[in-house]
Amino acid sequence: MARVYNFSAGPATLPLEVLEEAQRELTDYKGCGMSIMECSHRGKEYSDVHEEATANIRELLGLGDDYAVLFLQGGASTQFAMAPMNLLGQGQTADYVNSGAWASKAVKEAKILGKVNVAADCADEIPTRVPRADELRLTPGAAYVHITSNETISGAQYKSFPQTDAPLVADMSSDILSRPFDPFLFGMFYAGLQKNLGPAGAALVVIRRDLADRVPDSVPTMLRYKTHIEKDSLFNTPPCFAIYIIMLVTRWLKKHGMDKIYKQNVDKAARLYAAIDAGDFYRGTAVPECRSDMNVTFRLPTEELEAAFVQESSAHGFQGLKGHRSVGGLRASIYNAFPPQGVDALVAFMQDFEAKNG
Amino acid sequence: MARVYNFSAGPATLPLEVLEEAQRELTDYKGCGMSIMECSHRGKEYSDVHEEATANIRELLGLGDDYAVLFLQGGASTQFAMAPMNLLGQGQTADYVNSGAWASKAVKEAKILGKVNVAADCADEIPTRVPRADELRLTPGAAYVHITSNETISGAQYKSFPQTDAPLVADMSSDILSRPFDPFLFGMFYAGLQKNLGPAGAALVVIRRDLADRVPDSVPTMLRYKTHIEKDSLFNTPPCFAIYIIMLVTRWLKKHGMDKIYKQNVDKAARLYAAIDAGDFYRGTAVPECRSDMNVTFRLPTEELEAAFVQESSAHGFQGLKGHRSVGGLRASIYNAFPPQGVDALVAFMQDFEAKNG
Repeated sequence: MARVYNFSAGPATLPLEVLEEAQRELTDYKGCGMSIMECSHRGKEYSDVHEEATANIRELLGLGDDYAVLFLQGGASTQFAMAPMNLLGQGQTADYVNSGAWASKAVKEAKILGKVNVAADCADEIPTRVPRADELRLTPGAAYVHITSNETISGAQYKSFPQTDAPLVADMSSDILSRPFDPFLFGMFYAGLQKNLGPAGAALVVIRRDLADRVPDSVPTMLRYKTHIEKDSLFNTPPCFAIYIIMLVTRWLKKHGMDKIYKQNVDKAARLYAAIDAGDFYRGTAVPECRSDMNVTFRLPTEELEAAFVQESSAHGFQGLKGHRSVGGLRASIYNAFPPQGVDALVAFMQDFEAKNG
Repeated sequence: MARVYNFSAGPATLPLEVLEEAQRELTDYKGCGMSIMECSHRGKEYSDVHEEATANIRELLGLGDDYAVLFLQGGASTQFAMAPMNLLGQGQTADYVNSGAWASKAVKEAKILGKVNVAADCADEIPTRVPRADELRLTPGAAYVHITSNETISGAQYKSFPQTDAPLVADMSSDILSRPFDPFLFGMFYAGLQKNLGPAGAALVVIRRDLADRVPDSVPTMLRYKTHIEKDSLFNTPPCFAIYIIMLVTRWLKKHGMDKIYKQNVDKAARLYAAIDAGDFYRGTAVPECRSDMNVTFRLPTEELEAAFVQESSAHGFQGLKGHRSVGGLRASIYNAFPPQGVDALVAFMQDFEAKNG
């Protein structure tokens, strides 16, 4: 099997050993005579999967009992609405930090649902970056402060998190479990699965249990965090197969160790940024102190060269390097499961491409 | 491989040939060097899957262009909220027909969100049934009329659908694509995947496009049908793997033909009901004219015998025959993919069990 180097921003590459295990047991899960897709979500086979996925995430994140771990549907995009529906009381203000395209989407949804203060905004700056803590104009008594830990499109990432009086809420879709952080800084954080955790089709939500009590009676059952906390994400049929893959991915993370994966992530990104900085041909999109370890964004001297780079790299077995259609340029997404040798191969290709076109 | 007979109400048995195909290509989808789970939702591999799933459903249901086919997340339970959020204007009334546990859940959500008239209610009747058309007390000028085509828990099913002036909206989670019906009777119908269509983790929504225009501005982006119609269910990352399995299941349905599958469904149910009616030992739960072809519910003379039946049948390789925890008794869910020989085997087991315990 010729496995390509998949630099897609999400859905993204998964650990090959996870895919191979899922393949082996796809028609007969642990000898039970059914696929895990066919198992009742109330039966023992699936219950064990659900519990292990939850326990692995608790362990990897170092969560205490005051935090609930939820697997919900609708991706992070649904969380843009659920967060204000549950946490933003009438008359209250939520502070949103606008760091790019994804933060802007969160702001847009919150404004449909309540009062929003944009505490800082550098969404349109180039080079791209995230706001510094000293730039934030926070609202006294805000319901919460929302940030986007990593902007997948612009390639800008928080290297440290602001400490806020109001509960800090973060969209961590593209860097969850890629690096250590203190969960207790946060009231809530959430992530679509399809970058570091598994396939598309669910979102991980970690929420301090007391915050879920804020929800007004007017919020529908499925859109209340409280519903899912009380039923351990089994109020209705969960996305069992996606959660099964999370279980395998987090088992893989535990086996390799967060420390090693984090170090590997930093190394992979450093090698790519070094290749970008080696001359004038490539140009990083984000300011150096905000460069993402997950989504490495860069430009070439002309759009024609960028198009040629995408085409030639694809012919060499590098997939998904084209930047997001809204910004152009190039983007190499190198999540946890992206192999280091793929980064080395891309660096060699970049040097070769520059030699021919520079 | 010893494949069990899986009578689970959902997640439920899938066609073995679908599972085997998914298994073959799980690590390398059609030679592209990636799993379908790893493919970008904007790339050619997944786009083809998405388009074929949509086209298969259009063809199998005989839909015209005035209907949109959507793949959404959150299961049918989220549709209980989305339907009134999108279709029930302020000051309007929605008529709900309460036929059992699932209809009751739909009623509960709609009441959170707007004005509801329960047009008929036989949810607590035993033997179980669905209301007749002549029992419905409909509201003139209602926003819509909501029914539940098949009650998975009680085993009662509409054999024909009421003709209503207001748009008819149906939860068809447990009998979608199990029988022919005229889609033009409906303004909208929806179904969780995990019974007749695929794994848990998505819902199919079919909606007449003009109805989606009703949505008030206050509804968040992800909860508006209009958002997903305009972006062909690709506004955000869809549950790609679940939709890939729908594609395979609907391809399998087309290969066998809806006529054959329908006839087989009727035959399977008839053989089970005949076994139930053969003596006084077994007793069907639903009134004969409402007996579900999907969920065959029945009782034994005592709860002790029911428990023994569950235990012994499980030891014989029949899984999931225990009735829903809210009602007790037995339930054999025999969706499209459930093999006829499994029904024959269960009938033989029932005769044997009666001979020993009757």
